[in-house]
Amino acid sequence: MPVNISPLSSEQLLPVRGIALGTAEAGIKRIGRKDLLVIKLVENTQVAGVFTQNRFCAAPVTVAKLHLAEPLPICALVINTGNANAGTGQSGIAHAHATCSALAELIGCQAQQILPFSTGVIMEPLPVEKIIAGLPKAVADLSPDNWFAAAQAIMTTDTVPKGVSRQIQLNGATITITGIAKGSGMIRPNMATMLGYIATDAAITHPLLNDLVHHAADQSFNRITVDGDTSTNDALILMATGQAKHNPITTSADPGFAALQAAITEVAVLLAQMIVRDGEGATKFITVQVENGKTEEECKKVAYAIAHSPLIKTACFASDPNLGRILAAIGYAGIEALDVTRLELYLGDVLVAEHGGRAASYREEEGQRIMQAPEITIRVKLNRGNATTTLWTCDLSYDYVKINADYRS
Amino acid sequence: MPVNISPLSSEQLLPVRGIALGTAEAGIKRIGRKDLLVIKLVENTQVAGVFTQNRFCAAPVTVAKLHLAEPLPICALVINTGNANAGTGQSGIAHAHATCSALAELIGCQAQQILPFSTGVIMEPLPVEKIIAGLPKAVADLSPDNWFAAAQAIMTTDTVPKGVSRQIQLNGATITITGIAKGSGMIRPNMATMLGYIATDAAITHPLLNDLVHHAADQSFNRITVDGDTSTNDALILMATGQAKHNPITTSADPGFAALQAAITEVAVLLAQMIVRDGEGATKFITVQVENGKTEEECKKVAYAIAHSPLIKTACFASDPNLGRILAAIGYAGIEALDVTRLELYLGDVLVAEHGGRAASYREEEGQRIMQAPEITIRVKLNRGNATTTLWTCDLSYDYVKINADYRS
Repeated sequence: MPVNISPLSSEQLLPVRGIALGTAEAGIKRIGRKDLLVIKLVENTQVAGVFTQNRFCAAPVTVAKLHLAEPLPICALVINTGNANAGTGQSGIAHAHATCSALAELIGCQAQQILPFSTGVIMEPLPVEKIIAGLPKAVADLSPDNWFAAAQAIMTTDTVPKGVSRQIQLNGATITITGIAKGSGMIRPNMATMLGYIATDAAITHPLLNDLVHHAADQSFNRITVDGDTSTNDALILMATGQAKHNPITTSADPGFAALQAAITEVAVLLAQMIVRDGEGATKFITVQVENGKTEEECKKVAYAIAHSPLIKTACFASDPNLGRILAAIGYAGIEALDVTRLELYLGDVLVAEHGGRAASYREEEGQRIMQAPEITIRVKLNRGNATTTLWTCDLSYDYVKINADYRS
Repeated sequence: MPVNISPLSSEQLLPVRGIALGTAEAGIKRIGRKDLLVIKLVENTQVAGVFTQNRFCAAPVTVAKLHLAEPLPICALVINTGNANAGTGQSGIAHAHATCSALAELIGCQAQQILPFSTGVIMEPLPVEKIIAGLPKAVADLSPDNWFAAAQAIMTTDTVPKGVSRQIQLNGATITITGIAKGSGMIRPNMATMLGYIATDAAITHPLLNDLVHHAADQSFNRITVDGDTSTNDALILMATGQAKHNPITTSADPGFAALQAAITEVAVLLAQMIVRDGEGATKFITVQVENGKTEEECKKVAYAIAHSPLIKTACFASDPNLGRILAAIGYAGIEALDVTRLELYLGDVLVAEHGGRAASYREEEGQRIMQAPEITIRVKLNRGNATTTLWTCDLSYDYVKINADYRS
């Protein structure tokens, strides 16, 4: 059961002028499951993306990066689930190209104008014939109103579809931002999540859009972790169709840029948090906040040490304020010359440790109360500087083991 | 159930001349569980140790390091389970000192000649009165034949006691090496294990003994991981009583030094492997071997990425050759300019991946056969240098979650 995600409905995901989506059952996954998505972009849509840093990056990631670097505008995206086309060598690359060519022919553009994406099991050959056979159905289904179906079509071990919309006023026009994402396991994005797609009808130049996607990824998908495993297929794509009637944003000094950045970042953060809330086996949503470090780097080290500790994650699952495990993680995070007698540890708003040990004011009942809630905040004040970081993770439950011990079967 | 540990019996652990051990039930743990151990050393015993690098190192670790640095020889060690005396601030230090003073008075030496150790729950006050009250009983129990009882007395979530003995011929004398260890969770030692004690009656100078303990720790306890959590209390102590009748080893050029080093390292490796075999919830013993890297450092990065991946560990639990997860871990290990098309991945002796994808010769049945065994070797050839590393870990099972969600209750 995902933690505090209100069920998504079709009406919540607003169409974005210039974007049409179509899904199909290509038969990669079991019968009755949509597993193919095409996103078609109006002419002159700007597209920017960030991709996994995993060295075993998937074939579609390699091809998508290549096509984004080409001067031709992007016309469409194609996404399949059920197979990651990763660890598939040269034939994987050929399959990704073949998928692009097939879609290009259907919609009338060059293969380089298509971005391919895959997600699912790694190191098994992509069933490219099924994908190519399914494409006409997905293209026939294209409509601006299909965001909800699109969010469903990209699910793997996700238990709920994930999406969010926002509208803001920008330079005199109402602009819409809609995003969808998927991901539940193998989640410790390093540049982006498994798969995230955010579209807006704002008009903005490509360099600024590129800044936006990096900023949004850094504030959202790069701050979540489920199991510390960075996927081979992570990608976050930001599309701006320019269909809203406003003066295009051409400089970051335009006040509209900050407004757009804030709205897009909010959408990205909500999507990223949904991934954690629906993390494999998750029963708790955990915010780890590390404050007053010397650098953001060292705050992140402490935050990830806490967020990746199986001992802390199982204690959260058990609603057990086993605080010593948090101190131990802070201690092994690798912070140079850390004075443990100066730091403070809070659970929610309760001070639990200071002066190198349990706070005199701490009462076990207080810790218990906080650990029993579905949302837990672990806050560490290092008290040696002004840097801060926040990240989000989930607990480690029986179901995490069950899901991952069963995944391929 | 521990993986392939044959049950230890009292006869297997040989006495070491000059070492006496005594245990007691001090009432820190539940009734009927030994939780206090005293190890008394004959005069002129050389003692060397390595300790956790965790910055939240426990009070007894701080005190033991202090006492080892003093010029006075060490007379005895005192170890309690049930409470780690870590994250306990200044009062923790005072409790460790009080324990040393009490034992010193009983056996007639200075408090600085005692090394204290604790293991158990973190950040709860040490019940020092119970320990002090239990010490006379442990001292009355002192005998050279108590190694097995000692191995039992230091257990926490361990399901079996862990110990091993070896005898070798050294410069014309038979010398004995006996070691015991404990540890099952919070295991990713960084210098040593939770607690390991190895004694020998060999005669050797202190600087050489110090070399030996570092070498042995590096080859054994520093190469195991259960959950990636480095404990606050790790310590490995090596004691040499000099009671064997041979010319003392005073130079590393003495052929006896190499022989002793090999034997002590073997004991340390066997103890470290026992900790993994009895890792919390372990059903598989996994050897991760990374070969032909540029440096040992990069081999270790790859090996730990594999050994800490919950996805790989759950796949091992399920006996599922989900090889893509191993490729993904290699890919995110952070190796500069790694060419994934050049590396090879083996499961046992079966080549499973090469040229960036699944090996043409690989058959799923072969992978299945290897994953079903209780001992699995994952071998990665990076093919870019001559460095190599090996480490040992276990799988991630339902029982790991159960044990750690229940630990304090």
